[in-house]
Amino acid sequence: MNASRLLRDRIRAGEHTTVTTGLAPGHLQANLVVLPADWADEFAAFCAANPKPCPLIARSASGDPSLPELGPDIDVRRDLPRYRVFRDGKAVSEETDIGTLWRDDLVAFALGCSYSFESALLAAGVPIRHMEQGKKVCTYRTGLGTVPAGRLHGRMVVSMRNFTVPNAIRAIEITSRFPRVHGAPIHFGDPGAIGIADIDKPEYGGEPDIRAGEVPLFWACGVTPQAVIEAARPPFCITHKAGHMLVTDRLNEEFREA
Amino acid sequence: MNASRLLRDRIRAGEHTTVTTGLAPGHLQANLVVLPADWADEFAAFCAANPKPCPLIARSASGDPSLPELGPDIDVRRDLPRYRVFRDGKAVSEETDIGTLWRDDLVAFALGCSYSFESALLAAGVPIRHMEQGKKVCTYRTGLGTVPAGRLHGRMVVSMRNFTVPNAIRAIEITSRFPRVHGAPIHFGDPGAIGIADIDKPEYGGEPDIRAGEVPLFWACGVTPQAVIEAARPPFCITHKAGHMLVTDRLNEEFREA
Repeated sequence: MNASRLLRDRIRAGEHTTVTTGLAPGHLQANLVVLPADWADEFAAFCAANPKPCPLIARSASGDPSLPELGPDIDVRRDLPRYRVFRDGKAVSEETDIGTLWRDDLVAFALGCSYSFESALLAAGVPIRHMEQGKKVCTYRTGLGTVPAGRLHGRMVVSMRNFTVPNAIRAIEITSRFPRVHGAPIHFGDPGAIGIADIDKPEYGGEPDIRAGEVPLFWACGVTPQAVIEAARPPFCITHKAGHMLVTDRLNEEFREA
Repeated sequence: MNASRLLRDRIRAGEHTTVTTGLAPGHLQANLVVLPADWADEFAAFCAANPKPCPLIARSASGDPSLPELGPDIDVRRDLPRYRVFRDGKAVSEETDIGTLWRDDLVAFALGCSYSFESALLAAGVPIRHMEQGKKVCTYRTGLGTVPAGRLHGRMVVSMRNFTVPNAIRAIEITSRFPRVHGAPIHFGDPGAIGIADIDKPEYGGEPDIRAGEVPLFWACGVTPQAVIEAARPPFCITHKAGHMLVTDRLNEEFREA
């Protein structure tokens, strides 16, 4: 049995309830968004209009918790270590199993995640500071709008990684080959140009360690849909908790463009 | 007959003796270096060790002025509009035909040229300031070394193009797909970091027009081998004159990685 299936089995059995970072290496990990069916087409349209922050990989049928193209046995109600539940746009609880919350009108969406390109960067010898230091990636709300779709609208959230200039060029080259998992960065250099007032104060993650001669690169982040949901306030929504991802049977390399 | 062949015929007949910039669009244009056979293997090794400034595309047999893989009729003695002749590393003359200088021990090398990726940038809607203004590209000698090969050594020459940050990211993405025509830039941002004292004083080309919020990107340049030859002083060498290229039957798109 492959590593992703083994890990999902452990998660489903309640034996693993923490982050999936670095586990089942090589396997694509995905962000999860679950919405009522009457929001689903709008969310799909929002993803299509904003592929960099919302790279849609798979969508379930209404009421169906399986995503067979990502793994034949996947049950999104039990296969993630931790979920966030939103009511009217407000986070109201965290769960390790959403079986009792599942409804016949819910639709699950799996979105690409930066773990895929981070693994490609490391494989190419491009070091990632926050990973070397065992810290969380820094994310920021920006002043950049997204393309609205129906009731869904909001500003883009970005993640930041800092590099020397030669490694920044390599990072752009490499991540541009992964358009279905956020792709190339959307900005580098001056944080103020995208509405980040203070790079030392991320919304999530600790103070970054940016050294002389290094440049910050900003990627569209999979947290964006959570910010959009908070703004649009659908009556009900479930997402993964940051870092607690859906581990799929697909390989990151399948998402690299030739 | 294709546009490249027609242009070569006109050049060979002496009807076109100026730059080839923008002519026979879509066709790969190449830098030319001609060296005596006893320098040829060293030059090939230098290209192999420095693929970004010296992306070798074709090499002739000793004494043979044809490069059939670039065009069945090519004769490098007559098919470029203008040549520079070097003796002992010094430029001694410019010619429009090198038939009388040709020798049985000469070897011709064709190297990739930035025209290929510039055409891809324009096709993608990424504007190139110096082209919009009808100016020459700025080039600079840097403090960056090359990897020596035998008697060949010297510092890297770069060309500079400036962009807004989003277009800079697109330019890195696009040019990284053309590794055989210089590929991605080797640097962006601070010119001093690669030993350029004053960006307003290029070695070649006029003062650049870099506007607020724009960033300069620096690509390894095909002028590098000419600088290396000036430093290594082979007894005899012929190159193209800047902008007066070998126009081949190959298409730029053939040099784009999938």
